[in-house]
This record gives sequence, C-alpha cells and structure tokens, in this order.
Amino acid sequence: MTAPALPVFDDITEAATRINGLAVRTPLLESHILNERVSGRVLIKPENLQRMGAFKFRGAYNMISRLDKEHWPGGVTTCSSGNHAQGVAEAARLCGLPAAIVMPADAPALKLERTRRAGAEVITYDRDTEDREAIAARIAEERGALFVPPYNSPDIIAGQGTLGLELMLDAAERGAEPGAVLVPCGGGGLVSGVALAVKHFRDAAEVWAVEPENFDDLARSLKSGRRETNSSQSGSICDALLAPTPGELTFQIIRRLLSGALTVSDDDAREAIRFAFEELKLVVEPGGAVALAALLSGRFAVNGGTVAIVLSGGNIDRADFAGILSGKG
Amino acid sequence: MTAPALPVFDDITEAATRINGLAVRTPLLESHILNERVSGRVLIKPENLQRMGAFKFRGAYNMISRLDKEHWPGGVTTCSSGNHAQGVAEAARLCGLPAAIVMPADAPALKLERTRRAGAEVITYDRDTEDREAIAARIAEERGALFVPPYNSPDIIAGQGTLGLELMLDAAERGAEPGAVLVPCGGGGLVSGVALAVKHFRDAAEVWAVEPENFDDLARSLKSGRRETNSSQSGSICDALLAPTPGELTFQIIRRLLSGALTVSDDDAREAIRFAFEELKLVVEPGGAVALAALLSGRFAVNGGTVAIVLSGGNIDRADFAGILSGKG
Repeated sequence: MTAPALPVFDDITEAATRINGLAVRTPLLESHILNERVSGRVLIKPENLQRMGAFKFRGAYNMISRLDKEHWPGGVTTCSSGNHAQGVAEAARLCGLPAAIVMPADAPALKLERTRRAGAEVITYDRDTEDREAIAARIAEERGALFVPPYNSPDIIAGQGTLGLELMLDAAERGAEPGAVLVPCGGGGLVSGVALAVKHFRDAAEVWAVEPENFDDLARSLKSGRRETNSSQSGSICDALLAPTPGELTFQIIRRLLSGALTVSDDDAREAIRFAFEELKLVVEPGGAVALAALLSGRFAVNGGTVAIVLSGGNIDRADFAGILSGKG
Repeated sequence: MTAPALPVFDDITEAATRINGLAVRTPLLESHILNERVSGRVLIKPENLQRMGAFKFRGAYNMISRLDKEHWPGGVTTCSSGNHAQGVAEAARLCGLPAAIVMPADAPALKLERTRRAGAEVITYDRDTEDREAIAARIAEERGALFVPPYNSPDIIAGQGTLGLELMLDAAERGAEPGAVLVPCGGGGLVSGVALAVKHFRDAAEVWAVEPENFDDLARSLKSGRRETNSSQSGSICDALLAPTPGELTFQIIRRLLSGALTVSDDDAREAIRFAFEELKLVVEPGGAVALAALLSGRFAVNGGTVAIVLSGGNIDRADFAGILSGKG
C-alpha cells in the first residue's frame, strides 16, 4: 500500500462543498472585553456552535459521504474520546450507514450519550490499559466496516481545514488580517487542515498549536524532528486533546507550516472556561478552551496585533461545568 | 410638552447606521437538534453575544450618541435591573459622558459589577418598597442629567429594532421566511422595535411577546385594551423582565402589531437554560431564555413552520447558573 497523498488546498474547497448546508457555517465573533484584556484584536471561531458541538463533524462527513456503501456492509467504525465519535455517528446517520464507536469508559457522559443518541453503537475501553486502535481495527475487520481515523487521513484533514477557509474568508470580509492563528491540538487534524487554509490566503500568518501541559507531544516532536509520544493517556481535564502522538500525515504538514506549539495548564483552561462563560456567553469544554487560555494566561502575547483563535468544542458535562464555575472543578 | 412621535422603520435604519461597528452584529444560528425537537425550523438570534451581554446596548447607544453634551453637564441617568444599566453605562463611556444608574439591590452581582466596570456610578434601591423612577428623576434634576428610559422612548425602541432588521436580512440571505418571531418582553422596548422591523419586511409574519408567569402585564393589557400592572415587582428568576407595566409608546406599537403574548414558568425558563447549555452551547440568563422556553414547553407550536426566537441576554451569576445546571436553581 502506498502512503496516502497529503491533502492540498483544493481538497479543502471540495470538502467545503460537501459539508455545505449540513455543517454549521460558524460565525466569526469578537468581544471588546477580550480585545481590551489582551491588548489587541481577537477573532473567535466558535466551533462549539458546530453540529454535535465540536469541529469534528466537518472531517467525518467529508470522509463518510464519499464512501461507496456497497463496499462497507458494516458501515464505519472509529475510536475517539467523544467529539470525533459524535461527528462520525452523525455523519454515518446522515449517510445511512451503521457506526460502531470505541470510546474510553471515562469519557464525559454527555459525549457517550450524544454518540448513542446519534444512532451509533458504543464500545467502551480503559484509556490506560487497552489499545483503542486495536479494538477498532478488529471491529473493522470482523464487520467489513471502514475505520474513520480521528485525524490521520487526507479526507479528515481537508474536512477540518474548512474551518480555516471560513475563518480567512470571514476575516477578510471584515477587513481583518490575522497575524497568528491559535488552534487546540490533539492528534493534529484540525491544526494541520487550518494551517493549509490559512497559509493559502496569507503565507505570513503564523499558525500555532496549543496543547495541554504534560501532553505536549507535538511541542517535543517539533523540537526533535520526529513523532514523540506522551507518557500517559489520561490525567488532564482536556479530554479531547489526549491523543498519544501526532499523526504521520498531520505531522508532515505541521512541520512544514506551523510556527510552533504552546502549552497551557489545566488551571489555565479552567480560567478560560470561566472567562468564556462570563464575557463571551459561550459554553466551551476544557480542550476547546486552550487557545483562549494561551491568550488569557499571557503565554501568547497579542501585542496590539490581530489574532484568531479556535474554540474547538463545547461538550462538557453539567456537573463538571458547574464545578469549574464554582472554582472547584 | 407634546407626546413624542412613535418611531417608524426609517428610524431603525438610521439607528443601525449609528451603532454600526460598535454593537455586535450578532449572527443568526440554527441547531438541527432544536429543529428536530420542535418539529420545524428555528432561527436563533443570540443577543447574549451582544456587547455587554444583552440587546440593551443597541437602544442606549442610539439615544446617547445623539445627545448634545453641552446640554447635559451631568451626563445620563437611568433605572434598570441590570441589562439596560450596562448598555447605558457602556454607551455613556464611549460617548465620554458620566452615567449614574439606579439598580435594585438584589440585581445579579454580575450585572452590578459590570455596570460599575463600565465606569458608571451605581445607586441601589429596594425593588419592593422604593420607586426607582422617582430616584432617577431626582438625580436627573439635581445633576442636569438626561434620563435614558429603559424602553419608553422612540430612540430606544428604534435602537432595539435594529435586532429585528438584522434578523430579517440574515433570514432572507439564507432563504428562510419566519412565520413567527418570539421575543422576551419586560417593558416592551425590544418587542415593539422588532415588530416594526419584522412587519416592514413581511407583514404576514406574526410577532409574539413572551413574559414570565405572574408578570403577564402585557398579556392582560392586550385583553383589556389598557396598560395593566403587575401586582409584584419581584418573585421570578427572570429578573430582566419584571417591568411593572407596558410603556405608553411601546404599548401603542404592540397593540397594533403583535399577535399576542405568551407566558412561561420559571421552571420552563430553567429547562431552556439547560437546553441552551447542552445543545446550543450558549449561556442564556432566565429572562433571555423565555422565547426558547415557549418553544420547548410547547406553549408555542412550530408545526413544521419557520420560527425566529430572540435570546435576549446572558448575564447570569456563576452560582445561579451552576445551581440551574444541577437542577437546584
């Protein structure tokens, strides 16, 4: 088998046509309070408002809608901490395909429930002791189901890239030129797709990944030049960003296009969630809040410039959110 | 003194020009989950994303930006449960005028704090025993400050009407024709302005006000044909909607243009807040959630049609929100 070709900008425009009318074309928001707080202009891309509450539907639908149903009697399968799970379940439902999804037993209840509600079969596993990809691979083989990778696929990367396309078009429409774009990063599907789109429009714009502390596999990979691995797969509230290592394809794009990777702590993420609640009136999950956290914590200085950030998801349990609001989370 | 002329549609387009670039042009959102839940198409106008977290900045800035500063050495004053307060404080700050705001002592702490943070002087009163308009009138006279009415003014109504203008333009752009528009209602400034805009574009569209149970002064006024009064001024979680009676001007417009007024309970509002958290990823305050509550509770049946709702504000204290999420609020 030859390695799949890396996606290019045209794949993103084709993906945009495919998802049109089914994915939410999320708006670009601005908050004068956030602008004042960080001394600059911040363009906010709220993917918590996306179908299923996270950006993942973009890539999942882009890939699944292209399948030849006859070839995959078992439909699709994947492994995911919850947002990709929901995106795949919903895309499969819309395409009339069954979906079997491998999810960690400790995933937020909301994510488990919403994946089931979208019609998928959910198989749970232990994040620390079991290999989720092996479980999904076995299901794929037994059922004749296509494995939909969480990030390491040209179709997935191109689908997530539609977010960057919209961001740059909407920024231009309001006369704003982002000098930097900050993107939450797990396996790198979103940030690599967004980088392809952003650099197409404005090569001088910097693209940065933001990772949770202790899950900085990308930051270390960029330093060493090879794909490094996180020592643990649990232990951060940013449950959406705990992929063990950058994807092979995503890392090739990231190496070429990114300015670097930033790290924020769980407390930074909590503070960003409270800020989004109080000042933006948006519900953001921990992993979705890390780019905002990088600004608020001062880890990335705006310095009078224009910066775009992605709020990548909003799927958080009621009790966890209430706990964070109370300062107990 | 002659009675002020009622605002007309052209006043709304002029207001839109005045607030352009300072107010947020809030997007029009849609949720496939909400659409499925109510069996129809719902266009959501999220004014919780507006500057200061509620629609009120529109009217306040429209009025205050037109003032001749020389005539008002004391700047502006008003009375408000909190959202109008913030709108006036912020508009005065942007126009370089002092603001003195009369607010109930039991207003949400967030509203009190944010009004002060916008640079206003806050004077608190007891909602049940003191007359807030009398206090504000005294301040106006003593200081030479203009009283900015919460709703009963052509400038305020026209400013709030810009929301309806945006809603109809954005609905048309996506090929949607709302058969009905549901708007949270306290004194009626928002719903009367929105009705002027909606009816200009589509006379057949129904406009409905939504009030909290036991604060249904408008519903009763529409029945009796004269402005009725609420028996209490506290006792609902919908703190933003407890105005004692419809405004004289707003009621003239409402009588002519509205299809009626709906009522929802505090529990309906709580349920709508939880739905907005979980499915829309939006932070909505109780009074801001009543139009959504009217749909979710079945008090307004969508019946396969297209309906627009306004989420009029999102200023709610952390503890109150956490309490509602936990089912204890």
